[in-house]
Amino acid sequence: MPQVTLVLGGARSGKSGYAEHLVEACAGGGTYLATAEARDDEMAARIRDHRARRGRAWRTVEEPLELAAALARHATRDRPILVECLTLWLSNIMAAGCDVARERERLVEGLRTLAGPVVFVANEVGLGLVPSTPLGRAFRDEAGRLNQAVAGSAQRVILVVAGLPLTIKDEAENSGTVEQ
Amino acid sequence: MPQVTLVLGGARSGKSGYAEHLVEACAGGGTYLATAEARDDEMAARIRDHRARRGRAWRTVEEPLELAAALARHATRDRPILVECLTLWLSNIMAAGCDVARERERLVEGLRTLAGPVVFVANEVGLGLVPSTPLGRAFRDEAGRLNQAVAGSAQRVILVVAGLPLTIKDEAENSGTVEQ
Amino acid sequence: MPQVTLVLGGARSGKSGYAEHLVEACAGGGTYLATAEARDDEMAARIRDHRARRGRAWRTVEEPLELAAALARHATRDRPILVECLTLWLSNIMAAGCDVARERERLVEGLRTLAGPVVFVANEVGLGLVPSTPLGRAFRDEAGRLNQAVAGSAQRVILVVAGLPLTIKDEAENSGTVEQ
Repeated sequence: MPQVTLVLGGARSGKSGYAEHLVEACAGGGTYLATAEARDDEMAARIRDHRARRGRAWRTVEEPLELAAALARHATRDRPILVECLTLWLSNIMAAGCDVARERERLVEGLRTLAGPVVFVANEVGLGLVPSTPLGRAFRDEAGRLNQAVAGSAQRVILVVAGLPLTIKDEAENSGTVEQ
Repeated sequence: MPQVTLVLGGARSGKSGYAEHLVEACAGGGTYLATAEARDDEMAARIRDHRARRGRAWRTVEEPLELAAALARHATRDRPILVECLTLWLSNIMAAGCDVARERERLVEGLRTLAGPVVFVANEVGLGLVPSTPLGRAFRDEAGRLNQAVAGSAQRVILVVAGLPLTIKDEAENSGTVEQ
Repeated sequence: MPQVTLVLGGARSGKSGYAEHLVEACAGGGTYLATAEARDDEMAARIRDHRARRGRAWRTVEEPLELAAALARHATRDRPILVECLTLWLSNIMAAGCDVARERERLVEGLRTLAGPVVFVANEVGLGLVPSTPLGRAFRDEAGRLNQAVAGSAQRVILVVAGLPLTIKDEAENSGTVEQ
């Protein structure tokens, strides 16, 4: 399994299920790093859906803000981390008033020395009309920058459309750290 | 021609023209199953555009709600059905208060025993920002689920971007039911 | 380099950087044809970003409305033009009350006889939910039509996702006009 995989997709594109499948096919299960906080009923229902779909072979940890530190703490050679999701983490750090450029750099920097593989799930949000609010535009721009930065560090990038994977980057062949 | 084809695309991506081309290249023409109702001037103009583009080799039937039944009724081995479009049908059944999960299952179930080929046109609507209203989010989620379900049943899935086809699934080779 | 290249992408997808890379890899630099006008701080900042990223090998010209004429004036065999961007030009001509269909035809017609290569950057804006306003829908529809028309005239069309190119059309092999 490559060190860094990015699974991109739209809403309800099947990106999460596909990312879980990648981890399970390779290592049976992994560490599910949830960036969501169940702050409203809609989000709580989504989290329940996600938990129900994953089996017992998964361990769940939650980290809404300190993503780079959480990755460093939980990465191990035989247990991939699945980050669900990068875009929500961005939303969390923007809401918390963090310096987004600095957080992005810390994340990408940390990926170089991670002790095990990680799969990021992220939303592609830039393919609609220009948002009508400055905050909407700022979020969309930062989401695009973050996806580009992680894609640049990834050995494998997959766009999921209607549940189907479209590989847009694959340098994975010689970088496996988990036995296939 | 494969039993089930899904042609996905954004607004004005050329998906409808491409789907019509698929049917015409294979069978000369087919049955155009319109899910639209001309409830306002904008929609009426779109329907006129679509009719004008199609030639005489097409027969048009309209069915805003009972899609599974209409497919069963009109499917024949030598005359592909083109469904224009799946996303509008979803909008219709949501507006009518139908049970969306049940309707989706009925549709997908029916595809297994259809007497002839069908080409679905559907909108990809999940690649922009999160909609600001609960209804917008619910519609986007259901559209994603429906596209995934039909893509899972399809032998061929094509994403159309700027009029150009990008094949994302193709199991069509051995499943032809219309003479090429 | 092919006569006409279209680089499509979402917001902050890396499409501009990729288009600049295409021109620089082929000809060292080129003519940057900016369709933007710095009417507000947000746009001025974007223009500064773009200028800062490009090196000295670039010459910049600005033309918000008369795109076909500007292309004819600046096209030369050894210096590709990079149009940044097509979607903003569309926005400009719609705001100016121009006949969009006629302007689109003039642009596409002019591409046939251009004296040198051109690379268009354009936004894909049709993959989100239906916009809530008639103007939003009209703009989205016209953007889709324009992208289809230019893609139809292009020898090469590339969709950029998270900074990564996905080639969706390539007829470039035998049409080079700039020495590689």
